[in-house]
Amino acid sequence: MLKIYDMKGFPNPARVRIALAEKGLQERAAFIPVNVLAGEHRQAEFLQKNPSGAVPVLELADGTCIAECSAIIEYLDHLDGEPLLTGRTAKERAIIHMEQRRAEAGVLDALTTYFHHATPGLGPKIETYQNPEWGEKSRDRALAGLRYFDRVLATRPNLAGDHFSMADITALAGVKFAEFVGVDWADGCAHLAEWFDRVMKRPSVAAAW
Amino acid sequence: MLKIYDMKGFPNPARVRIALAEKGLQERAAFIPVNVLAGEHRQAEFLQKNPSGAVPVLELADGTCIAECSAIIEYLDHLDGEPLLTGRTAKERAIIHMEQRRAEAGVLDALTTYFHHATPGLGPKIETYQNPEWGEKSRDRALAGLRYFDRVLATRPNLAGDHFSMADITALAGVKFAEFVGVDWADGCAHLAEWFDRVMKRPSVAAAW
Repeated sequence: MLKIYDMKGFPNPARVRIALAEKGLQERAAFIPVNVLAGEHRQAEFLQKNPSGAVPVLELADGTCIAECSAIIEYLDHLDGEPLLTGRTAKERAIIHMEQRRAEAGVLDALTTYFHHATPGLGPKIETYQNPEWGEKSRDRALAGLRYFDRVLATRPNLAGDHFSMADITALAGVKFAEFVGVDWADGCAHLAEWFDRVMKRPSVAAAW
Repeated sequence: MLKIYDMKGFPNPARVRIALAEKGLQERAAFIPVNVLAGEHRQAEFLQKNPSGAVPVLELADGTCIAECSAIIEYLDHLDGEPLLTGRTAKERAIIHMEQRRAEAGVLDALTTYFHHATPGLGPKIETYQNPEWGEKSRDRALAGLRYFDRVLATRPNLAGDHFSMADITALAGVKFAEFVGVDWADGCAHLAEWFDRVMKRPSVAAAW
């Protein structure tokens, strides 16, 4: 059994739920809710599992805890020796990891910084330090990242090529989070909008929020 | 031939040079210098290769450009179908990617932010926006990340287990950069210091700067 500590409705938990569904592994997963709004992710018991204090965490049967979505997805994708989301050849792997990192650092993490620093975020008890100017800069960086992906999607159906991959998962979580935090991204991004409509209809994605 | 656009002496270029040497691929690589100090990485010709405007970039024989060190290392490590730096099993891959991400986001990227925002960085022509308070916070975050790795290294010889991996490469580039920017990290980090001494003596690492 794969134990997954998360909070449904948040972007990073959604990434792992999508990967589980794409791999057909839902039946093997047990979800343990972590009340992030109450700060449970910052308490000692959870920090034992992930010192970074973030959901989701995958706990293996031997007690090993895997944090960071890209690492969890690498695990799930290689469980059966048939990678579907992270590429098969060296070149496929490289392009997927490149676009995944751009989507993570350049979009999703940047929007998360905007949310925690330039909006009320999760409220004053959780947001103990805010840097609004950096938050605004991070939003602008995320918008630049999304415009980059719009240009990529003018040339291929998915972010890293023909197939839906880990990079698409990260980026769609980013676009979905942009909508949640009220960042208007669609202007001049027709290719991205078409892609977003399409990927949101995948059963794995529709069920993840 | 593997064309690599980089600037020797910088942390991210060093990561790829170490991976090349660990894989025994140096003979297949041609290095093309990019003058980052003169802003060459922000000019149109280079942005064609990497819209993020950062070195290193690996250009394949077919013209495909791979940016982001973790993606380049995935490529090099899978070229011969014998991964050495990114793990063989699902669990090895997961732990390596988890610690790699922690070393990247939590140490190296954080120190880079400190350098560009709370020090003169690359000088006023390149550093067109600075947020010193965020820079200081990022330095504190990097120090917390290094203390985390000290605790990890109390339990195993390398960051992700018995073997030297991509996670060690990222983290050692982080520690080396901490020294370059004058961040005093060693206090209370005896395990990290022992590991750093040891990994810096690897021939691949000693030649990378």
